[in-house]
Amino acid sequence: MKKDLISNHIQLDDSDQLIHLLGLEGLSKQHLTHILDKADSLIDTSGNLRKSKALDDMSIANLFFEPSTRTRNTFEIAAMRSSANIINVDLANSALKKNEDLLDTMRTLKAMQIDMFVIRHKQNGLPHHVAQYLKDVSILNAGDGINAHPTQALLDMLSIRQYKKTFEDLSVAIVGDITHSRVAHSDIQALKTLGTTDIRLIAPKVLQYDLKPYSAIKRFGNIELGLKNCDVVIVLRLQKERMIEADIPNEQEYFDNFGLTPKRLALAKPGAIVMHPGPINRGVEIDSSVADGNQSIILQQVTNGIAVRMAVMQILANKL
Amino acid sequence: MKKDLISNHIQLDDSDQLIHLLGLEGLSKQHLTHILDKADSLIDTSGNLRKSKALDDMSIANLFFEPSTRTRNTFEIAAMRSSANIINVDLANSALKKNEDLLDTMRTLKAMQIDMFVIRHKQNGLPHHVAQYLKDVSILNAGDGINAHPTQALLDMLSIRQYKKTFEDLSVAIVGDITHSRVAHSDIQALKTLGTTDIRLIAPKVLQYDLKPYSAIKRFGNIELGLKNCDVVIVLRLQKERMIEADIPNEQEYFDNFGLTPKRLALAKPGAIVMHPGPINRGVEIDSSVADGNQSIILQQVTNGIAVRMAVMQILANKL
Amino acid sequence: MKKDLISNHIQLDDSDQLIHLLGLEGLSKQHLTHILDKADSLIDTSGNLRKSKALDDMSIANLFFEPSTRTRNTFEIAAMRSSANIINVDLANSALKKNEDLLDTMRTLKAMQIDMFVIRHKQNGLPHHVAQYLKDVSILNAGDGINAHPTQALLDMLSIRQYKKTFEDLSVAIVGDITHSRVAHSDIQALKTLGTTDIRLIAPKVLQYDLKPYSAIKRFGNIELGLKNCDVVIVLRLQKERMIEADIPNEQEYFDNFGLTPKRLALAKPGAIVMHPGPINRGVEIDSSVADGNQSIILQQVTNGIAVRMAVMQILANKL
Repeated sequence: MKKDLISNHIQLDDSDQLIHLLGLEGLSKQHLTHILDKADSLIDTSGNLRKSKALDDMSIANLFFEPSTRTRNTFEIAAMRSSANIINVDLANSALKKNEDLLDTMRTLKAMQIDMFVIRHKQNGLPHHVAQYLKDVSILNAGDGINAHPTQALLDMLSIRQYKKTFEDLSVAIVGDITHSRVAHSDIQALKTLGTTDIRLIAPKVLQYDLKPYSAIKRFGNIELGLKNCDVVIVLRLQKERMIEADIPNEQEYFDNFGLTPKRLALAKPGAIVMHPGPINRGVEIDSSVADGNQSIILQQVTNGIAVRMAVMQILANKL
Repeated sequence: MKKDLISNHIQLDDSDQLIHLLGLEGLSKQHLTHILDKADSLIDTSGNLRKSKALDDMSIANLFFEPSTRTRNTFEIAAMRSSANIINVDLANSALKKNEDLLDTMRTLKAMQIDMFVIRHKQNGLPHHVAQYLKDVSILNAGDGINAHPTQALLDMLSIRQYKKTFEDLSVAIVGDITHSRVAHSDIQALKTLGTTDIRLIAPKVLQYDLKPYSAIKRFGNIELGLKNCDVVIVLRLQKERMIEADIPNEQEYFDNFGLTPKRLALAKPGAIVMHPGPINRGVEIDSSVADGNQSIILQQVTNGIAVRMAVMQILANKL
Repeated sequence: MKKDLISNHIQLDDSDQLIHLLGLEGLSKQHLTHILDKADSLIDTSGNLRKSKALDDMSIANLFFEPSTRTRNTFEIAAMRSSANIINVDLANSALKKNEDLLDTMRTLKAMQIDMFVIRHKQNGLPHHVAQYLKDVSILNAGDGINAHPTQALLDMLSIRQYKKTFEDLSVAIVGDITHSRVAHSDIQALKTLGTTDIRLIAPKVLQYDLKPYSAIKRFGNIELGLKNCDVVIVLRLQKERMIEADIPNEQEYFDNFGLTPKRLALAKPGAIVMHPGPINRGVEIDSSVADGNQSIILQQVTNGIAVRMAVMQILANKL
């Protein structure tokens, strides 16, 4: 399915309440703020995650069709800290050739009393597709193709809010492969909804944002120009398979042109924060001294990722 | 071991109480009814599975030597809903060449305080073999070769009882590869014990029931004749590897001859129920409109599968 | 890193309390006794493991870079019986080429509120290396290269203490591949700390102990001489890859020269106990009748292994 044809409308019920989390398009500022507030409440004053009994009656299934131990673990930990049962359904050996087979698998799991499905799939819009056919369960999109990665964007927003309090007056730069990044797509949507009016997309030409832009979006081919006086820098991970496509001969070349170095970061505002969805490629898209430096909030993002996933799970569970 | 030489006698103790579940042969109507009653008590009036603390002192190990994510998940969920600890022992990398190695592995797990073993193995009688050598643990057969699949048959009986109340006056048709189906073998045994006097086995000649038949069993090579006025249709999954053996050139051919279509189902009694152990091959052994139709209780079987496994685990735990 | 250059000093804090378990070198008799006493308290009078709520606020990650279902399961069960959350981080697909990548993975897991890491790795000193860079978490070495396997040695000591009460007056024989055995290295260290003055290392020449010996250590190439009047026999598992190196043409040859047979065991003291870290190779390093005989405490070792791991986890958790 083409990315710009995917609709999230079925994630809201008739009273405008969230029943799935498929993507951020179509959610209001109130929806996002509600999730962020809930997530904040799950972190104690020392910055540690609370444990909760909120989901002790829920059973959740992780359906990961793309290998991503890391993201799968975040949902697993979020479920465990909320006292839910969670099973990892191993789909490596599964012969789910057709979407119909997947639907049968999910209906079967639902009949086993699974209440919530966390889905990662390489096909754009797959979570939206299955959500149409399943009643009385919640679908949580953990990344579909290049379309959306809503929980990542929400944890990014939580992290920005913790450090910058507001979204309206911020300049946010996103650096890297914008075209193929579901993280970038969801971040842009979230920032738009939350009112950010200066979003700078910094990328080599072939990896630039190729959807319909709007007034807040400015595109840069030059990282120095793009970073100037910004408040937030979100660095994207460089996927090796994109280097060939973008005619980037090697990692050093990418680093020379788009790597976030201390010198380049110095062009941003003094208190600018550095973010990255992880795992980082040191010396490729980010210099080690920046990743480990005092402007980096990369590990805080990880903690926020658990809080946001707990929050979303608990909000969706309330509607089941 | 030849299927008809496998004995289940060690699954009962001296007071005729269940201490393992190896197969249904040798269990009385009272034994089966006790399990079905227990399973029914674990489903609430809305048809949802209850949670229970019954096994919170138990540790269970899943030993799956055949890949079957689906069945493994059912035991995992049944254990979790009963508050037991459960571990999946990964045997893909294991070099258990001899049964003696397997026994050593199981004795080791027992020494780690594992109380119950769920075993799936391609060798007929393997669970029976190990049960002879292990004391103070329970063995739960999750499918051994073509011999038996007792929990599947029990969930089938629970499903039939929920819809038909009785077993005595029923006509039950089983369609598909009877020869190699442990599900069919256990279903036939269960129906016999529960008093069903009209069991129709519908299959291509080479896949027909090849054990010693008894008076209740009627064999059919023609599905239309076999389905006539029956109350229950159990459709078996067609395993691809059997098609060559049975000289079935392709799936369409099988469907043409033995697929359950609306037209064929219409030959059964009006209120006849359609069952399938899953996962279904749509358009091979069953037409989609039948699988999703209002006579199909396939998803109810899945829910009953969790209830039955919880029930068996709890009954066995009482004797440990 | 060379085995004899690896230092465990960072496993103790300024007050000499255990904050990691990296190896037994550097731990006092009091440290070891404290762990053994704690482990003993987790076994009830019938020899069954108790359940504990001690770690219900802890999250533990299993990081196994070497395949070892068995050892991984022991930590998993120990965590579950202590009410901790535990996740298995699948590292088979991970592209952790550099130690820096591993540190990033672990920092990320720590940010997900993982408190304790169980690590098995083929590189000597890897757990020590990462422990230097991570604050406020505990590292538990589950075997690093040929360097150390401290929890195995602790369970061996617990087993010896249960049967022999004391360590000072014992003669302990270790038979097999001493050179490459982290179990042997850790056992020798533990026995030294606990005061055993007669440690006999029995091995083919090329598999003999090749570190700096001390007065308690005696080396034997002949098993009959080595076993004479000993109190404890620890048999090591023969790794196939070592047979070629040691010019052992086949398993029978090894068994003929170093296998523990009833006849050889008769040379030890009458009440001598037989131990093995498992899994055993019957007919290779040990005769079946000895492994299953009444002097064998191999299965008791397994139970003790859970108790020791629970004890270590609980002691480390107290310092977090």
